Amino acid sequence: MKKHRRSILSLGAVLLSSLLFAAYLTSLQVTPAEAGMADAVIYDENGNLIQPKDYVWRDWIYVGTPITPNDLNPPEAPFPEFHNVYIDPEAFKHYKKTGNFPQGTVLIKELVSVGSKQASSGKGYFQGDFIGLEAAVKDAKRFPDEPGNWVYFTFSHKAPPYPKTANRQPTAACNTACHQELAGDDWVFTQFYPVLRAAKGKGM
Amino acid sequence: MKKHRRSILSLGAVLLSSLLFAAYLTSLQVTPAEAGMADAVIYDENGNLIQPKDYVWRDWIYVGTPITPNDLNPPEAPFPEFHNVYIDPEAFKHYKKTGNFPQGTVLIKELVSVGSKQASSGKGYFQGDFIGLEAAVKDAKRFPDEPGNWVYFTFSHKAPPYPKTANRQPTAACNTACHQELAGDDWVFTQFYPVLRAAKGKGM
Repeated sequence: MKKHRRSILSLGAVLLSSLLFAAYLTSLQVTPAEAGMADAVIYDENGNLIQPKDYVWRDWIYVGTPITPNDLNPPEAPFPEFHNVYIDPEAFKHYKKTGNFPQGTVLIKELVSVGSKQASSGKGYFQGDFIGLEAAVKDAKRFPDEPGNWVYFTFSHKAPPYPKTANRQPTAACNTACHQELAGDDWVFTQFYPVLRAAKGKGM
Repeated sequence: MKKHRRSILSLGAVLLSSLLFAAYLTSLQVTPAEAGMADAVIYDENGNLIQPKDYVWRDWIYVGTPITPNDLNPPEAPFPEFHNVYIDPEAFKHYKKTGNFPQGTVLIKELVSVGSKQASSGKGYFQGDFIGLEAAVKDAKRFPDEPGNWVYFTFSHKAPPYPKTANRQPTAACNTACHQELAGDDWVFTQFYPVLRAAKGKGM
């Protein structure tokens, strides 16, 4: 009877261990948002970039917002909207640690209209509504022949819902036309992104 | 001998259980970023707001950036910088679900200089460097007598490192001077924050 009780105790303890170990392993799993990059870079069978789902970039790291409005660039600016730019969390972590953008880096650029130009705080530019979504991806394996291994995708230049997939832009449209020569750091316009400049190589 | 071995086995299993359980508990602890609001709202013994640590707002939800530059508000704008505004993740979750800002909501406003006004993309405003940090907190329990229960704190109007604590601004300086009458939703200028407008009451 005593032996039997001990065996049950042992068995119980082992079962409890297994259960707790399983729970521990489950707790280690990363969410899509935490996975960041890995989850973001998915392509369809035609090589089109699939949209990072559920507006996941709202959980990414915001890096900066340039604005080149129409009224300062008559008759019409090439990019009249606010560009709210985000980087995936894994790439940001790597950039902080090493000062370099890792393979698989994704930057999302959400376009926002100029909503108003006057408020109680003065004359200026105030964000209106979402009117587009673009992405830049660095991937030497997938894009070995692109300058810097960066490719630029346009989901939409219209209000949401954004299309699920984005075609690659021609190399000449974004890469060699601007980013290759003028971007501050590895095809990224870090000169306009204080978050990236402040973080570069500063550790985890 | 056999009994002895069984005892050791039992003891080992129990120890393993405890160890794994401890590991599981540790894994359940939330990081400051995950804790969001709860971690953000800490005050010193004088009631000054303590700075959300380690730039935790980089993991918060970016909501928008107004800009009212000097050259559009001669001779000098009251707020000549970019204002990059973030909300703590818990409050954002609540706002998405209910359409209301919960008690404990924290908004961080990071001031960024106008770095340049000309780039390959045209004339406009491009973010320079960080030059200040402010916060708004909604807390009916702590601020029962403030309009809307919102209080405004200024950490710094200078470059980082920002001071660790921030004094409350007088009610007349931010609250009744602007936010109370002119903010779009509950003392928050949601009319300039497309992320909040798009999320309001849209579910988890």
